Amino acid sequence: MPSSIKAIFFDVFGTLVDWRSSIAREAQQILEPLGYALDWLAFADAWRAEYQPAMEEVRGGHIPFCKLDVLHMHNLEQILPRFKVGKLDAATRHNLNMAWHRLDAWPDVSRGLYRLKRKFMIAPVSNGNISLMVALARRNDFPWDAILGSEIAGDFKPKPRVYLSACEAFDLKPAQCMMAAAHPNDLVAAAACGLKTGYVSRPNEKGRAAEYRAPKETFDISADDVEQLAGKLGG
Amino acid sequence: MPSSIKAIFFDVFGTLVDWRSSIAREAQQILEPLGYALDWLAFADAWRAEYQPAMEEVRGGHIPFCKLDVLHMHNLEQILPRFKVGKLDAATRHNLNMAWHRLDAWPDVSRGLYRLKRKFMIAPVSNGNISLMVALARRNDFPWDAILGSEIAGDFKPKPRVYLSACEAFDLKPAQCMMAAAHPNDLVAAAACGLKTGYVSRPNEKGRAAEYRAPKETFDISADDVEQLAGKLGG
Repeated sequence: MPSSIKAIFFDVFGTLVDWRSSIAREAQQILEPLGYALDWLAFADAWRAEYQPAMEEVRGGHIPFCKLDVLHMHNLEQILPRFKVGKLDAATRHNLNMAWHRLDAWPDVSRGLYRLKRKFMIAPVSNGNISLMVALARRNDFPWDAILGSEIAGDFKPKPRVYLSACEAFDLKPAQCMMAAAHPNDLVAAAACGLKTGYVSRPNEKGRAAEYRAPKETFDISADDVEQLAGKLGG
Repeated sequence: MPSSIKAIFFDVFGTLVDWRSSIAREAQQILEPLGYALDWLAFADAWRAEYQPAMEEVRGGHIPFCKLDVLHMHNLEQILPRFKVGKLDAATRHNLNMAWHRLDAWPDVSRGLYRLKRKFMIAPVSNGNISLMVALARRNDFPWDAILGSEIAGDFKPKPRVYLSACEAFDLKPAQCMMAAAHPNDLVAAAACGLKTGYVSRPNEKGRAAEYRAPKETFDISADDVEQLAGKLGG
């Protein structure tokens, strides 16, 4: 790998944290005592399924940029009736929405980030807002140098501005930065902006039952987890 | 102190890092081998003296917002002729300007920040740009949760937007945030936005010879250093 790389940027949902089982757990903890018995993983999947369409409203210029927390709340209100969850009070809805601040990392992530930080600047370049990224970092011990991504850029990935604003914040050219993600479309968009790409496979992101397919695209590095990525980058 | 405080924001130049002796040292290391023998502390003072007037151009809307690194370079080019330093090549000027990325912290800062981080979210709210803040954090082991401040706000302190954008990034009301600084005017501006204030005295910021005067304003907390601030905040 070229020694010119100075910074590694990370996708977060799916790549670093297991949103699916975390959201299922949090939803169960909040809603079960209220008498609801949902398919909690299906609830997590349904909530996540609203993620791209909601961001597309912003990316397309139909609504102004807002924090992902705001979109998550909007999406939550869309799916609750589908799961026959009646009117929740504002505090309960807020607590449920904050489940996205309480996601657990895959077990390799913190150790891998500490290794990478010795050699590179590291930052999340996620669609999540700053406070969400801080909450996940504090919960899971992610030693970020800075929180970059959508809230700095005022737009959502895969719009070029998000990747480019991260490079600019660190005074780096795109070719000096690597985007690391479990999602090929994120990496393809980063590569189109000139960034290097690191694929981190997370076959369990959508559950063991889901059929995982290795990406057909090629990336500068592919790794099974963040510790292996650190090893391949000499960190 | 009210237990409602969730985040502590820090001024950096002077409050956390000793810009004066660091800049003098860096300038000497770069310029002395080229045959210059300046009063290095006077050079640091002269460079710093251009700081507020340059930012005032931005705050007043006369020039667009830019990173502090850019203003530092402009200011450097102003003062070099005054010290009879001839034409430096671009790499040397850049290296000299990057002296601001190599400032040393006062000895209490890293330990104090680690203590505060156990209880509060912590971030710099400085006029320095993100890459400058990251460089100082990596050099001095500042465990920031995020890098907030001028580059997020698109303006310079003491403009209200800088303090308020930091609170908003953390989803907090101003009264849930404390601004900590060695400079009364910074704290007065933060208090006008509704933030709590923590004064950290740095009588040696401008050298031992300079006459230090305790501020006449009163603040929510006053401390002799960041460790004492942590102790007073129960961290």
